[in-house]
Amino acid sequence: MAEIPNSHPRKKSLESRQKIVDGSSMGLLAESAMIAHGRGEAFDYMLGERTTNPARQAIRESAARLRNARRPVISVNGNTVVLAGEGAIRLAAVLGCPIEVNLYYRTPSRVKGLISLLKEWRLEVAEEDAPDGFNGDWRDSVEGVSILGGSPDFEIEGLEGPRSKCTREGIGMADTILVPLEDGDRCEALISLGREVLVVDLNPLSRSSRMATVTIVDEVSRAFDGILSYLLNDCEYRPTKWDNLRSLKESVKEIGDYFSE
Amino acid sequence: MAEIPNSHPRKKSLESRQKIVDGSSMGLLAESAMIAHGRGEAFDYMLGERTTNPARQAIRESAARLRNARRPVISVNGNTVVLAGEGAIRLAAVLGCPIEVNLYYRTPSRVKGLISLLKEWRLEVAEEDAPDGFNGDWRDSVEGVSILGGSPDFEIEGLEGPRSKCTREGIGMADTILVPLEDGDRCEALISLGREVLVVDLNPLSRSSRMATVTIVDEVSRAFDGILSYLLNDCEYRPTKWDNLRSLKESVKEIGDYFSE
Repeated sequence: MAEIPNSHPRKKSLESRQKIVDGSSMGLLAESAMIAHGRGEAFDYMLGERTTNPARQAIRESAARLRNARRPVISVNGNTVVLAGEGAIRLAAVLGCPIEVNLYYRTPSRVKGLISLLKEWRLEVAEEDAPDGFNGDWRDSVEGVSILGGSPDFEIEGLEGPRSKCTREGIGMADTILVPLEDGDRCEALISLGREVLVVDLNPLSRSSRMATVTIVDEVSRAFDGILSYLLNDCEYRPTKWDNLRSLKESVKEIGDYFSE
Repeated sequence: MAEIPNSHPRKKSLESRQKIVDGSSMGLLAESAMIAHGRGEAFDYMLGERTTNPARQAIRESAARLRNARRPVISVNGNTVVLAGEGAIRLAAVLGCPIEVNLYYRTPSRVKGLISLLKEWRLEVAEEDAPDGFNGDWRDSVEGVSILGGSPDFEIEGLEGPRSKCTREGIGMADTILVPLEDGDRCEALISLGREVLVVDLNPLSRSSRMATVTIVDEVSRAFDGILSYLLNDCEYRPTKWDNLRSLKESVKEIGDYFSE
C-alpha cells in the first residue's frame, strides 16, 4: 500500500482498513470479517472517528471493573487481533490476565495463525518502554501474558457447536470478560451465566451492545488505549451502578447529532 | 451457505452479503469491496432496509432523466454487477443503452470476469417474461444490450491513470450516466465535463452523493427495480429542476429519525 501522509485526516481509519485487508489475505479472518469492518467504519465515521464522551465514561467504568475483577480475561477474535493485538497485550500485562482467541467461525488454522501473531506482538511489546504509570518490570509482565484458545476444553452453556467452545483457564473460569466485536448470541449466553461482559462495539444498537454489562461504543484500538490509561492513572475510581442503556442512548444521540448538523 | 428462511427479516440483506462474499472469492471484486459493502450495510440498516420517500423521489427523477437522455449509459463496478447485474441488464434493455464495466481499481482479469458475468445474466434475463408495461420484443431488446469496458479507448478529462479510462461508445459520448457506488473523484470529473450524473449511494454524505446531479440514497438492486418500474409505468413525468442537496438532507433526516426513535 502507498504510504498515507501524516496530514491525511482519515489516516488512522485507512491504516486500520489496510490491516483488515492484509489480515484477510493472510487467511486470518473469517470471510465476512471485511464486511463487519466496513459496518464499523460507517459507524465510526458518524461518531467523528474519535472517542466520544459517553464512550470515555464507559471506558473508565470498564477499567475500574477490570481492576476489580477476581479473574478477568480478554477475549479476542480475528478483527480485534489484527486491529488492536498490541493493545490487548498491554492491557493483559497490566491486568496480569490471559488473552483468549475465541472465534465465532472457528477453524484450527485461523486460531493458530492468530495465536502466532499475538505471540509476535508479545515479543514486540516486551521491548517497549513501560507505559506511564506502570510500576514493576514491564518485560516480565508482558512475557507472562498467557495466550489461550488453541486447545478449548470448556463449553459455554446455552450455545451449540463450535461457537460454544472456550478454555477453562480463560473464559471458562472468568468473572469479567472484555470482549470486543462480539456476537450477540454469545454475549447473551455469557450474561445469562452471570458473567460481567464488557463489550467494545461501534454500533450502539447491536444486540451485543444492548446485552452487555458495559458497552464501549468506540473503535477497538482507541478503546484499549483508553482502558490502559485509566487502569494506570485513575486508581481511585470504583465501579458504579452502571446504567448501560442510558449510556447507549447517549452514544445514539452522538450519531443523531452528527446527522442533524 | 445455509439457506436463509423466507421469514428472516433481514433475508435480502444477508443474501446480498453472500453475493459479495462469493464475488470476492471468485476474484471479481477489488480487495476493499467487502469493506465498502459493509459500510453500505450499516447505512441501509439505518434507513430501515427499504426505499425511503426521498429515495423514491430521486428514483422517479432519475427514471425521467434517463428516458429523456439522448445517449444514456449505465456504468457498473464489481459490487454493482454482483449485487444488481440482472437489474442493470433490464434497465439497459428498456432504455436501449449500453452497460459499461468501469472499475476504479481496473485489472484486465476483473473486467473480463465481470463482462462474462453480465453476459450470462443477459442470457437469463432474455428468457424472462417482459416486465409490466414493456411494449416490444423483450428477448430482442435484452439480446441487443451492449456490454462495454473490455477495450477502453477514451479518457475522462481531469483524471489520471487507470481510473480515467473508459470507452468512447459508452461513458465517452454519454450525456447521462447512471453510476451506482461511484468514487467521488470520478463523479466530480464527470460533472465538471457537463455530464448529468445519476448516482446510487447509501451514504447521503459521501462526496459522490454531494457531487451528483441526482443521488438515489438506496440499495442498488432496489434502486434499479424502482427505476425500471417508473421507466415503464410513469411516462408522463418530466424531469424537474432537481434540488439534490434538499433531497440529500431529507435522506439524512431519515437516518437521524432512526436514531432518535
